[in-house]
Amino acid sequence: MPRISESTVRRLSHYYRALVEVEAEGTDVISSQRLAEREGTTPAQVRKDLSHFGSFGRRGLGYDVAHLCREIRAILGLDRRWRVVVVGAGNIGSALLAYRGFAAQGFEVVAVFDNDPRRIGEAVGGLQVRDVAELGAAGASDSFDIGVIAAPHHAAQAVADLLVSAGVSAILNFAPRKLIVPARVALRNVDLTMAFENLSFALTPTRGQRRRRAQD
Amino acid sequence: MPRISESTVRRLSHYYRALVEVEAEGTDVISSQRLAEREGTTPAQVRKDLSHFGSFGRRGLGYDVAHLCREIRAILGLDRRWRVVVVGAGNIGSALLAYRGFAAQGFEVVAVFDNDPRRIGEAVGGLQVRDVAELGAAGASDSFDIGVIAAPHHAAQAVADLLVSAGVSAILNFAPRKLIVPARVALRNVDLTMAFENLSFALTPTRGQRRRRAQD
Repeated sequence: MPRISESTVRRLSHYYRALVEVEAEGTDVISSQRLAEREGTTPAQVRKDLSHFGSFGRRGLGYDVAHLCREIRAILGLDRRWRVVVVGAGNIGSALLAYRGFAAQGFEVVAVFDNDPRRIGEAVGGLQVRDVAELGAAGASDSFDIGVIAAPHHAAQAVADLLVSAGVSAILNFAPRKLIVPARVALRNVDLTMAFENLSFALTPTRGQRRRRAQD
Repeated sequence: MPRISESTVRRLSHYYRALVEVEAEGTDVISSQRLAEREGTTPAQVRKDLSHFGSFGRRGLGYDVAHLCREIRAILGLDRRWRVVVVGAGNIGSALLAYRGFAAQGFEVVAVFDNDPRRIGEAVGGLQVRDVAELGAAGASDSFDIGVIAAPHHAAQAVADLLVSAGVSAILNFAPRKLIVPARVALRNVDLTMAFENLSFALTPTRGQRRRRAQD
């Protein structure tokens, strides 16, 4: 199978959400056209994205909603539970711990670590904050799947190294800094500034528009 | 100009970060090949993305780093300051207020509102939390550009309506719920679950891989 791009996976997540909604509305079959419209893409893109994983629709008939929903859930790995460890019990970490939606999707935060003595021992989102010095040892017994870095950017690489030695297979990094991890560990970065940039782009007139306005 | 997709804008943000780094390293010229490699895309994609906005490179010579950096900054609207108002002083809101990177990029949080009497009047990230009931009136005098919804999902639509009446041109929504806003208001949603799904996809063997493993 060719490498699947992050944007393809992002669109699969969107399709999945749309299908869950459509299924809840009681719809049995959906066309690539309608699925594309809901997600602001083209029917050709929908068919191409899905074709990476198999053949799901029937020409002229569309997709069986329940079946496609189940298939995408399996493709995205949402048909099992993932054990998540959060490092950093500050605002981002606490926000993740407070968000119940993750557990419903199969992402269960099972431990939270920090290095601040004032935070260690405190209860956050139903978990007791543990000393980050114990993270490596905890990994041996707790078998974490996904590590979340919610630590300040200057500590992020050290935390990444700790998570790798604790045996995680994947890291989600909220610190605005590039990290180096072994190739066997999947790494994704969440850059909140990028969401703002998408908006400022939308608010910024293009040069052509500025020129036209200046001529009005 | 044709409509520019969100993923094109996201790639522009990536190119911009790469160019800032490359410029700091003292590099004057970069090829589309090298820019593509840094961001995990193809040279053809880089050229196509940039071609929406003008002609920046010279065939065989590559891009002038400082010039392209300045151009993308202007395209993304990062060459000015945006006045940001945050609604919700909980974990997500506090994380945004604590993150200094936004101000450096031109996104200045100038006000924060909440409806919880225990939070109103408190200081968060150098700002005093104000009563959300005053948001509409504040908009008339403070001229907010971007509103951030960091409120619980059940309050999100009501907050969106308030932000629209307070005169924002754009909304960044962290609540996991679809919102309805007038067409003149740009809306972007940040769905933290999607980042997790991208990781669980990376950790999930494809059907072909499972079959091959079972045969081993």
